[in-house]
Amino acid sequence: MEILVVNPNTTAGMTAKIAAAAAAVAAPGTRVTAVNPETGPASIEGWVDGALAVPALLREIARGEARGVAGHVIACFDDTGLDAARSLAAVPVVGIGEAAFHVASLLAGRFAVVTTLGRSIPVIEANLQRYGLASRCARVRAAEIPVLELERPGSEAEARISAEIAAALEGDRAEAIVLGCAGMADLATRLSARHGVPVVDGVAAAVTLVEALARLGLRTAKTGGYASPRPKPYAGGMTGFGTR
Amino acid sequence: MEILVVNPNTTAGMTAKIAAAAAAVAAPGTRVTAVNPETGPASIEGWVDGALAVPALLREIARGEARGVAGHVIACFDDTGLDAARSLAAVPVVGIGEAAFHVASLLAGRFAVVTTLGRSIPVIEANLQRYGLASRCARVRAAEIPVLELERPGSEAEARISAEIAAALEGDRAEAIVLGCAGMADLATRLSARHGVPVVDGVAAAVTLVEALARLGLRTAKTGGYASPRPKPYAGGMTGFGTR
Amino acid sequence: MEILVVNPNTTAGMTAKIAAAAAAVAAPGTRVTAVNPETGPASIEGWVDGALAVPALLREIARGEARGVAGHVIACFDDTGLDAARSLAAVPVVGIGEAAFHVASLLAGRFAVVTTLGRSIPVIEANLQRYGLASRCARVRAAEIPVLELERPGSEAEARISAEIAAALEGDRAEAIVLGCAGMADLATRLSARHGVPVVDGVAAAVTLVEALARLGLRTAKTGGYASPRPKPYAGGMTGFGTR
Amino acid sequence: MEILVVNPNTTAGMTAKIAAAAAAVAAPGTRVTAVNPETGPASIEGWVDGALAVPALLREIARGEARGVAGHVIACFDDTGLDAARSLAAVPVVGIGEAAFHVASLLAGRFAVVTTLGRSIPVIEANLQRYGLASRCARVRAAEIPVLELERPGSEAEARISAEIAAALEGDRAEAIVLGCAGMADLATRLSARHGVPVVDGVAAAVTLVEALARLGLRTAKTGGYASPRPKPYAGGMTGFGTR
Amino acid sequence: MEILVVNPNTTAGMTAKIAAAAAAVAAPGTRVTAVNPETGPASIEGWVDGALAVPALLREIARGEARGVAGHVIACFDDTGLDAARSLAAVPVVGIGEAAFHVASLLAGRFAVVTTLGRSIPVIEANLQRYGLASRCARVRAAEIPVLELERPGSEAEARISAEIAAALEGDRAEAIVLGCAGMADLATRLSARHGVPVVDGVAAAVTLVEALARLGLRTAKTGGYASPRPKPYAGGMTGFGTR
Amino acid sequence: MEILVVNPNTTAGMTAKIAAAAAAVAAPGTRVTAVNPETGPASIEGWVDGALAVPALLREIARGEARGVAGHVIACFDDTGLDAARSLAAVPVVGIGEAAFHVASLLAGRFAVVTTLGRSIPVIEANLQRYGLASRCARVRAAEIPVLELERPGSEAEARISAEIAAALEGDRAEAIVLGCAGMADLATRLSARHGVPVVDGVAAAVTLVEALARLGLRTAKTGGYASPRPKPYAGGMTGFGTR
Repeated sequence: MEILVVNPNTTAGMTAKIAAAAAAVAAPGTRVTAVNPETGPASIEGWVDGALAVPALLREIARGEARGVAGHVIACFDDTGLDAARSLAAVPVVGIGEAAFHVASLLAGRFAVVTTLGRSIPVIEANLQRYGLASRCARVRAAEIPVLELERPGSEAEARISAEIAAALEGDRAEAIVLGCAGMADLATRLSARHGVPVVDGVAAAVTLVEALARLGLRTAKTGGYASPRPKPYAGGMTGFGTR
Repeated sequence: MEILVVNPNTTAGMTAKIAAAAAAVAAPGTRVTAVNPETGPASIEGWVDGALAVPALLREIARGEARGVAGHVIACFDDTGLDAARSLAAVPVVGIGEAAFHVASLLAGRFAVVTTLGRSIPVIEANLQRYGLASRCARVRAAEIPVLELERPGSEAEARISAEIAAALEGDRAEAIVLGCAGMADLATRLSARHGVPVVDGVAAAVTLVEALARLGLRTAKTGGYASPRPKPYAGGMTGFGTR
Repeated sequence: MEILVVNPNTTAGMTAKIAAAAAAVAAPGTRVTAVNPETGPASIEGWVDGALAVPALLREIARGEARGVAGHVIACFDDTGLDAARSLAAVPVVGIGEAAFHVASLLAGRFAVVTTLGRSIPVIEANLQRYGLASRCARVRAAEIPVLELERPGSEAEARISAEIAAALEGDRAEAIVLGCAGMADLATRLSARHGVPVVDGVAAAVTLVEALARLGLRTAKTGGYASPRPKPYAGGMTGFGTR
Repeated sequence: MEILVVNPNTTAGMTAKIAAAAAAVAAPGTRVTAVNPETGPASIEGWVDGALAVPALLREIARGEARGVAGHVIACFDDTGLDAARSLAAVPVVGIGEAAFHVASLLAGRFAVVTTLGRSIPVIEANLQRYGLASRCARVRAAEIPVLELERPGSEAEARISAEIAAALEGDRAEAIVLGCAGMADLATRLSARHGVPVVDGVAAAVTLVEALARLGLRTAKTGGYASPRPKPYAGGMTGFGTR
Repeated sequence: MEILVVNPNTTAGMTAKIAAAAAAVAAPGTRVTAVNPETGPASIEGWVDGALAVPALLREIARGEARGVAGHVIACFDDTGLDAARSLAAVPVVGIGEAAFHVASLLAGRFAVVTTLGRSIPVIEANLQRYGLASRCARVRAAEIPVLELERPGSEAEARISAEIAAALEGDRAEAIVLGCAGMADLATRLSARHGVPVVDGVAAAVTLVEALARLGLRTAKTGGYASPRPKPYAGGMTGFGTR
Repeated sequence: MEILVVNPNTTAGMTAKIAAAAAAVAAPGTRVTAVNPETGPASIEGWVDGALAVPALLREIARGEARGVAGHVIACFDDTGLDAARSLAAVPVVGIGEAAFHVASLLAGRFAVVTTLGRSIPVIEANLQRYGLASRCARVRAAEIPVLELERPGSEAEARISAEIAAALEGDRAEAIVLGCAGMADLATRLSARHGVPVVDGVAAAVTLVEALARLGLRTAKTGGYASPRPKPYAGGMTGFGTR
C-alpha cells in the first residue's frame, strides 16, 4: 500500500527528515511517499502560515486520492487543514498531532506536549479540545525554538527541548511526552532513553495509524461534516474540489 | 470610523445584502465598506470551501488594515479564517458567528442556532466549543437549504427556517434564536416578530460589536496566539504577511 | 437613548467615577444616568454584601424600566442580581463582569482577571462558569485591596494591581487583562499602556454593549428563565414586581 | 442538637409541611425548628422572588447562629441565598436542592429532577453546574404546577409529577428521581413505591446531612469565599452582618 | 441498625483503626461492624492491588447483605469495587472517598486531597471526574508515604501530611482538606485544629452518610447500571452473585 | 511478533470468534494468541461480572508478559481491568473499547456505540469520560441482547443491532458506528455495507493499534499511575504481582 505524507510547508530538507521517520516505522508492504507543496511558507508558525498553506496541501491530498493511495498523513503538528483534507478524501487522513495524542493516550494516563514557539500553543490547545483529548494533556510547553532552527546543525534545539521535558515530568506530573513539531521526528528515541518515559513522534505515529486504518478496511465517514464538497462555481480562476 | 466587512465568498449579491444589513445598524459616524474577494467559492458550505476562501479573505483584511480601518467583520457564519485574520490585524476583528453567540448570551440563558446545511453543523459546534459558549447553545439545527438558495426569490428558505425555529423553541428549550448564515440577515426582524423571541443576525451583531470595541479603544492582543506572523520565505510566488 | 447604570453599593464617590467612565465611551446620542441605591452596603465584598444589595438594585432597575430607558448596566463586577434584573426588564441588562469577559474574548484567546479581595474570586469564578467563558479565563487573581481603598488617594492600589497584571502575563499565559472591580475603571488605559496588552474595564465595556444591543433592536428573552415575575402576595409590607 | 430549617417564602402552611417532613427523619436527639420570614414572597418562582427573599432569610440564619444551633437548612429547592448564608454561619448550612443531589448521587449513577415551573429549570441547572453534579443529572423537568398549587387539596399536582417521573424513567434513562420543590416533601414515599425507583425529597435529605455534618464536628470553611462578612457601613438604615 | 464497614485490605491493625473512627461518630442506635477479607493484599496502592482486592470485598458485602445490614461502607479511599458492590446490594453502599468529597463540598467551595503515594493520584482523579466533583477539587496531592507507614509508630507520616496541607492552603487556594487514606482516620481532628480549616476523614464521613441514607429509607437504584447481576454460569469453581 | 488477546470471560466459542477477527487483520509477521481464563463468568454484563473476571485476566496478562509478547489486547468492550493490566505490563495493553473509540475518532467527527444490554451503558459512558472521548460520542445505545445470545445461531441479534444503528444515524447525527461487544466482531463489515458508514469492531481495531505501538517501539509509561505494583504481603494464599 502507498501512504502519502504531505509536509505542508515548503522546506525540502524537513520533508526529507519526515520521509526518513516515516519509512523507519512503515510495515514491509508499505510504500511511503513524502511530498511538500511548491507554493507556500517555509515553516508553519501560528495561524497565518497555517491558513496560507492549506490550499496547496489540499491539492496534494487530491492528487494522492486520485492515484489511489491507501491513506494520507498531514505532517504538520498543528494538523493544518485536517478537516478539509478529510472532506476531500475517501481513504483515511491522519494528522501527526492527533496521531501523537491518540498514541500517547494508549500508553499513559497523562502526557505533556513540547512544541517550538509559544504562538503555537493556542493552536495545539484548540486541537486537543476539539479532539476531546485535552483532559489527557497536562500542559503544552514551548521550547521557544523557531521551526527551522531544528534543521540547523549545532543549534541548541535538542537541549532546550530536553529541558522542557524535564520540567514537564517534574512539574506537570506528565507520564509521557509528545514532541510538538514534525521537525523533531529524529529526537524521540534519544529523548525517551534520556528521560525514561515514552516520547512520541507524531510522524511515525501517524504512519502506523494510517496503516492500521487501511488494514481494517475503514474509510473516512462521508455522511456528516466530512461529506465531499458540493460542486459549485469558483471565481477568479480558482478550481474547487466538488464532485460532479 | 470605517469598518471593513468581508464576505469571504464571491457572490456579489450576497455581499450587497450583507452591506445593507451592516449599514442598517451602523452608528451615525460609521462607514461600512463591504467587499468580497475576486477569487474563491461562490458559497461556503463545509470545511473545504472554507479553507479555500481564507487566503483571499486575508488579503482583504490586510488591505483594510493598511488603509487604517477601525475594525473588520468576517461575514461568514463559520467565522472562516478568524484566528488568522486576528493575527494579521492590529484593530479588532469579529466573526459574525461569534458575534451572534455573544449577543444572544447577553439576552437569554440558552439559544439555538438555525443554519443552512447539516454539513455546517460540525463547523459551528467546533466554534462554539472553542469560544467557550457551547454550554449556552441548546442545539445547532440545519434547515437543509443550500446557501445560495437563500438568494433565490420564491424559495422555501424562510418557511423552512421558521419551522426549525418553532422546533427549537418547542423541543430544545431555546429562549433565543441565532440565524446561522450571513444570507439570512434580512430575516431576523420578521422571524423575531413571528416567534416572539429574540432572533439574532450575526452581520448586524458583528458591526455593533466592532463599533463597541473601537469606541473602547481596544485592539487585538498581540502577545500570544495572535502575534503578528513572523517574516519568512514563501515559495512558489506566494507572499506571506510577516512584519519586516 | 438613555442607559441606566446602577452602582449597587451606596458609595456616591464610586458612582461618580463609574459615571465618568461610562460617559467617556458613550456614543453621541447616548445619555448615561448613573445611580446608586440609598440603602445598602458601602461596598460589595463577597456573597453577603451582594445578596443584601440586590433588592434595592432591583428597585432602581424597575424605575428605569418604568421610564423607558434603552438598557441597564449593573456596575458591580460580581454582576450582582443580574439574573433577577433581567427577569424584571424588557430591555437589555448587562453586568460589567460579563461585559468585560465577552469583550476580552473578542480580542484575545485567553485573559486573566485582577480583582480586589480573594473572597471575591469564587463569586467571579462561578460567574465565568455560568456564562460559559471559564475556559477563556487563565486565572482570577486578587490584589488583596479592599474596594474602598481604590477610592483613597495615595493608596498602593494601582501598584498592587499592576504587579498582579505582570504576574498574570508572565505566569498564566494571559494575553489580555480584565479589571475586576468597578472602582478600577479609571486605571485601564494607563495599565494597558504600561503592560502592552489590552486591559478591559467592565463599566465602559458594558455601556458599549448595551448601546450595541439597543441599536440592534434586541430585547431580553421572556419565554424561559427571564420570564417576568408572576404576580403573587408579598408579606410584611414588601412589594414584589409581578406583572398584573 | 437543634437544626434550624428556614423556609424562605412566607407561606406558613408550607412551613408546617416542611417541619413535618424534617421531624419525620430527624434522629432522636435532634430538635428541628422550622421558621419562615415575616417579610417576602408567598412562593419562590424564578430569579426575582428568590432575590427578594434572601435578606429576610439571612436574618433568620443569623438569629439561629446567635442562639447556637448545630446547623441550618435552607428549605427552598433553588438553594436561595445558600452562599451568603454559609458566609454568615460558623456551623454547617445545607440547601435542600444540593442535599437531594448529593443523596441521589450516592444511590444512582444518574438522576432526574422534577420541579414545578419551567422558569425554575435554569435556576436548578445553574446550581447543578455550580456544585459539579450536572453530569449526574439526566434532565431537569417541570410539571408546570405553580408552587402554591401543591398546597391546594384536590389539585392535579401529584398526577402531573408522577407523569413526569414516568417520562424521566422512560426517556432520560434516569435511575432515581429528585423532587424539585420543598412543597413536594410529602410525596416522595408514595411516588417511590409507585415507580420502583428511589425518589429523594430534599427537606428530609438536608436534615440528615446537617445531622451528619454536626456529628462529624465539621464546620463551614472560613478562609475563602465563605469568610465572614467584613464590617462596613450600611446606608439607609440597613444593618449588615460584618463581624466587629 | 448495623452498618458493615469493609476494609478491603488484609491488615487487621488498620481495620481496628477504621473501626474506632467509625464507632466514634456512629449515632446511638448504630452498630458498626468492621471487617477485612482473609484473602488479598496487605494494602491497596495503585490499580493492581485494588483489582485483586475486589472479589473478596464483594463476598463481604454479600454476607452483610444476606444478614440484613442497613448499609455498607467501603473503607479504602480509592472506593475500590464501589460500582460492583452497589450492584450487589439492595441497601446503600458508600465509599470513603466519595463520602469525603461530598461532605467537603457541603462545607467549602473548593477542597484539596492529601493522599499517600503519587501512584494513587490518577485513581482518585478518575473517581472525582466520575462522581462529577472534580471541579470542586483544587488538587490531589501525595505525601509520598506508603499506606502501612501510617501504621508505624514514630513515622514521619503526620508531619509530611501536615506539610502537604500547608502547601494546599497556600498554593491551591483550598478551603478544606480531605485526607486521602483510611489509615489517616485518626489525624483529622488534630490537623484541622492545627491548620484552621475543615479536615475531612472519609471513614467517619461515610458512616454518617450511610446512617443518613438509612434514616431516609432510601435504597440503591436497581433499574440501571446497579441492577442485580444476571444469573449465569461461572467456570473454574467460582461462584457469581446472580439472583436466581 | 506475538500479540496476546485475552477474552476475560470463560466462553470458549467467543474466544474463537475473537481469535478469528484478530487474525483477519493481523499483519503478516504477527502471531495472535487468543486465550480466556479457566475461572470466571461466562459473559461480562455489568459491574459485578467485570470485577470478578479481573484477577484471572491479570494472571493471563502476567503470563504473556513473562514470555515476552509484544503487546496485549483485552477483548471485552468494557475494557475490564485495563488500568491494572497496564500497571502489570511493560509492553502496550489496549482494550477493545478504547481501541474502537480512538479509531472511530480518526474517521468521523461523531460516532455512536451500539452495545448489548442497557446495564452496560454506564460502564461504557464512564470509560468514554475517562478516556476524554465522551465529547466524540453522540450516544451509547443498547440493543437489549444478552451477550451470549450473540453466539446463538438464529437469534435476532443482528437485526436488533442494525435497527439501533439506523436509529443512531437518523436520531443522533452519528457519522460512524462502534460495535459495543467483542461478540459482534463478525458483523462489522456487513453492517457497514448495509448502512453506508464506517462500522468499527474493537477486536480488530485493538490488534492493529497494538501492532502500531509495537512497531513504534513504545512501551507503557511506568512513572505514574501505571507504575509496577509495589511488592507486599498477600494474605489467604493469594499472590500479588509486586516486582521483587
